[in-house]
Amino acid sequence: MSDTKAAIGIFDSGVGGLTVFRAIRQRLPEESLIYLGDTARVPYGSKSGAAVTRYALACAEIVLKQDVKLLVVACNTASAHALDVLRDELDVPVLGVIEPGARLAVERTRIERVGVIGTVSTIRSAAYQDALTGLAPNLRVFAKACPLFVPLAEEGWTEGFVPEAIARAYLDELKEAEADALVLGCTHYPLLKPIIGSVMGPEVELIDSAETTASVVEATLEGIGLRAPPGNLPSFRYNVTDSPEAFAEVGARFLGHPIDDVEWVDF
Amino acid sequence: MSDTKAAIGIFDSGVGGLTVFRAIRQRLPEESLIYLGDTARVPYGSKSGAAVTRYALACAEIVLKQDVKLLVVACNTASAHALDVLRDELDVPVLGVIEPGARLAVERTRIERVGVIGTVSTIRSAAYQDALTGLAPNLRVFAKACPLFVPLAEEGWTEGFVPEAIARAYLDELKEAEADALVLGCTHYPLLKPIIGSVMGPEVELIDSAETTASVVEATLEGIGLRAPPGNLPSFRYNVTDSPEAFAEVGARFLGHPIDDVEWVDF
Repeated sequence: MSDTKAAIGIFDSGVGGLTVFRAIRQRLPEESLIYLGDTARVPYGSKSGAAVTRYALACAEIVLKQDVKLLVVACNTASAHALDVLRDELDVPVLGVIEPGARLAVERTRIERVGVIGTVSTIRSAAYQDALTGLAPNLRVFAKACPLFVPLAEEGWTEGFVPEAIARAYLDELKEAEADALVLGCTHYPLLKPIIGSVMGPEVELIDSAETTASVVEATLEGIGLRAPPGNLPSFRYNVTDSPEAFAEVGARFLGHPIDDVEWVDF
Repeated sequence: MSDTKAAIGIFDSGVGGLTVFRAIRQRLPEESLIYLGDTARVPYGSKSGAAVTRYALACAEIVLKQDVKLLVVACNTASAHALDVLRDELDVPVLGVIEPGARLAVERTRIERVGVIGTVSTIRSAAYQDALTGLAPNLRVFAKACPLFVPLAEEGWTEGFVPEAIARAYLDELKEAEADALVLGCTHYPLLKPIIGSVMGPEVELIDSAETTASVVEATLEGIGLRAPPGNLPSFRYNVTDSPEAFAEVGARFLGHPIDDVEWVDF
């Protein structure tokens, strides 16, 4: 049985899940967090479901070697392919980012038309499409893979002519579909919010699952009685499977502040 | 001791090395070829030298389980980081793509000004810069990482407004450097030749190391007496570490014809 002071484990293929890490830290400032970025095998979004599932299990194994009370799969591609397997295999509660994102989109659309963007692997899995129509059977869903958004976000190339041209090329057909909510179905995409928003226009709400996921984490910890005790002094740890320096550099862009003490782990 | 009918082994992080595979097959049509694309861990270009070296050793191990007389590292990033280690560890001759590319550039420049483009990891390693100035100490070298070129080539997004805007953003500073030869220091880049050429202009020669590498392969086989016998009926095998279907689909773009019998291998 985990204790209340155990950490929340969070993993992603790389840096993108830090958008979820940040949302959890803001909502639950007394919780210790352990983040793992599988930077040696990033990206997951262009890989098969079998490969992604294998990597997700390996990541979970690393994170759960530490004292962890709940695991968050802060990667849409891994959530799409591996959530059921992780829940079967692991002894701690496992939360993904797709269900919270889908739930928020269903709440926010007023005309039952929702767009979803994500990696090739996430969109091909139809995990969002299934989650959305599972919640609201009459919903019309328009899905589009945007493979160049991840490298753009990783490069920090988030404004100007080139990212705007790429965004237009991907999003024009979604704009024509006239949805009023667009799910950012990849944890890298919040960095591109300004440009995605300017292409889609103010009438389309951008759905970022990071904050909703944080609220589901809170509710789950309440439900199982494992919230950190009031006044708990949290610790924050960052693990990566490739270069700690590269992660610290790119990760600072995602968190908005420098990251210290990134530790390399073998897989 | 290898026999003359043994295959030439070729590996790359993914599909890009097929440009080298094709050049070798055209030059040496009687040689059997075994190709390995490490698609489960692609791309190498954003990863550390330590990770790339580890993957290169794992790839070599897979390829050399088969009957192979010579190994070609058809990936610039792996050539940049792992060639010495592979030569130390393996019993067969190992050829990379950087030395041949550098040699060709030195031959072709008339004004001793050479540009080099490649992945972040290749450019950061300075392997091309060192190879070029090792061959011609007075050469001026202008290097630039172009991280979005690999995803563009993999997506097959090789013409039109967006790739041209990306190419201009990367290449304008190289154009201003007024080199007369530009090394395409990544095996994906030949797919972007038309757009790179149109940005750089006709006065800049694009150096593609695939054909030069094929001629070095031929010379090496001659040198060690292991050319396939005349009239040999060659076989071509494709191995991948992730989805065979995805490799066959993208690989067809690189080879210009369909690929059959792609086989998944564990690593």
